[in-house]
Amino acid sequence: MRRTLIYRHPPIIAAHRSIVGRKEGDGPLGEWFDVLLKDDLLGQKSWELAESEMVRRCARDALDAAGLSAGAVDALLGGDLNNQIIATSFAAKKLGAPFIGLYGACATFVEGLALAAAMIDAGHLDSALISASSHFCTAERQFRFPLELGAQRPPQASWTATACGCALLRNRGEGIRVTQGTLGRVIDLNISDANHMGAAMAPAVFDALTGHLENTRQRADDFDLIVTGDLGWIGRDLLLRLFKKAGIDMPEDRLVDCGASLYFREQDAHAGGSGCGCVASVSCGWIMKRMERGELRRVLLSGSGAMLSPTSSQQGQSIPGISYAVTLEG
Amino acid sequence: MRRTLIYRHPPIIAAHRSIVGRKEGDGPLGEWFDVLLKDDLLGQKSWELAESEMVRRCARDALDAAGLSAGAVDALLGGDLNNQIIATSFAAKKLGAPFIGLYGACATFVEGLALAAAMIDAGHLDSALISASSHFCTAERQFRFPLELGAQRPPQASWTATACGCALLRNRGEGIRVTQGTLGRVIDLNISDANHMGAAMAPAVFDALTGHLENTRQRADDFDLIVTGDLGWIGRDLLLRLFKKAGIDMPEDRLVDCGASLYFREQDAHAGGSGCGCVASVSCGWIMKRMERGELRRVLLSGSGAMLSPTSSQQGQSIPGISYAVTLEG
Repeated sequence: MRRTLIYRHPPIIAAHRSIVGRKEGDGPLGEWFDVLLKDDLLGQKSWELAESEMVRRCARDALDAAGLSAGAVDALLGGDLNNQIIATSFAAKKLGAPFIGLYGACATFVEGLALAAAMIDAGHLDSALISASSHFCTAERQFRFPLELGAQRPPQASWTATACGCALLRNRGEGIRVTQGTLGRVIDLNISDANHMGAAMAPAVFDALTGHLENTRQRADDFDLIVTGDLGWIGRDLLLRLFKKAGIDMPEDRLVDCGASLYFREQDAHAGGSGCGCVASVSCGWIMKRMERGELRRVLLSGSGAMLSPTSSQQGQSIPGISYAVTLEG
Repeated sequence: MRRTLIYRHPPIIAAHRSIVGRKEGDGPLGEWFDVLLKDDLLGQKSWELAESEMVRRCARDALDAAGLSAGAVDALLGGDLNNQIIATSFAAKKLGAPFIGLYGACATFVEGLALAAAMIDAGHLDSALISASSHFCTAERQFRFPLELGAQRPPQASWTATACGCALLRNRGEGIRVTQGTLGRVIDLNISDANHMGAAMAPAVFDALTGHLENTRQRADDFDLIVTGDLGWIGRDLLLRLFKKAGIDMPEDRLVDCGASLYFREQDAHAGGSGCGCVASVSCGWIMKRMERGELRRVLLSGSGAMLSPTSSQQGQSIPGISYAVTLEG
């Protein structure tokens, strides 16, 4: 089994854009995002169309930033949490680019980065847009309860971010390089509380990060920052415990979780942010911008997804997690 | 935009397996499938677990046929129609192989073939399993009505096949080669009848097939067979009309649709078979076996998906279609 891909001709992140909702804009990372929405409905008739419009705008902005037309990009790889990934596929329809639909739950963005980098490295694509989105209102009503119900949330529940991140990879130019990627395995330690995503995903993240480090013969010290997707505050603690238990050195101050960074504690987001758009927007905003400023040189970016559906949960199934990882070099 | 990928080191289909339900086994292609289920529930507690077990068995059988363990395969690429692709991700959990979750609706199998071939061609993977499944009972209750209701179906409705197909691609050995692949674009000609999948997908199939032929400078005559996924009887007629209107020669006797081939007319499948498992099982059964017997040398295989969700339909949105194509050479 070869899980880790080494890109011999590392693709460049030619452009990246992020769009977030009002709550995310009010959080500690607000200043790092490109677009702060005032209207989470984006003038659309439904939350689903709003999320799709967010994807279209974000992709459009990334293309504009690189001076590329949608007709010139070789592929859009992406997905979201909506059933049948309608937010992304409806955006792909408007963009007109060849579309590779992915489903990796909240790990979709990093899954897309790893795949697109492999395709560009091989010369199969010259350019690719990678996109992932989530919207609190589409996810809440699809996975949990009708919004109008105002259901109380347990403390371990995460808050689905209203956010989208798009990165444009190209085979040449200047910018952050994607140099290594590790594919995820589905791992399930029998967590069946559908509100406890951090616990369900932490073992998969541990598996992807240790796999990535081992296969590339690197240590945590080789990176300025190790970024996880949306474990939240509880899941991040569990991940640190897994490293400690395995006797692997993981400096706590260098492990940053996007979900645990997106909101202030007093914003009532409970365990932290989640959703495909969480890691996508935070990495396209905060992480990549800090890399471009020279504050970070080497970043190990992972995303994690909980591969559950309301049906599997209602049938009493536990929650399988998956995580992918890529090395970004400034 | 580069939609068509030419594999310089074409991967080999080292093994392929198909599993189908009772209705599919009773159809005209029954003898070509590897496993005919007597129990569509496969001894499981729910239809969703049954579909997942079908994926696991089919993948296991394909690995066994090639003498490979699940731990030795570099990746499983696949998906299904269930929300959050739970049938495939739960099977991936049991197999333990690195997992690349895809969502291309009923085009998922060919999407996976094109992607996996690119990854193997590039040397990023040595082997990959491609899987796609569907189950009448999971799809019917998720997309349409409770099974118990016995709702009447309009004549243009297709019948979701209970079926799974798995192909194992490797970078060396003897067998059918995957030599070219064309990525799909999301195309929507404003069909909003969620029962009329053939009409919604035909324009996307036309776009993928003509794109594939143009970009590789081939004509229909260069192939012994041109296979479409699940347009059904009506969708196949519409596709032929699109070719005629465009003045492109497409010999009617050489264009075979998996959905239109899977059932006898008297089996009450209305417009024909559909579902991710339709093109997957028919190509892994009928098509690839005929190629191995030497009856077919060059096949243009396409799959088509309708990227709708019950939510998008209920919100009055039309149905976007997508289609991918690959060249198989015996």
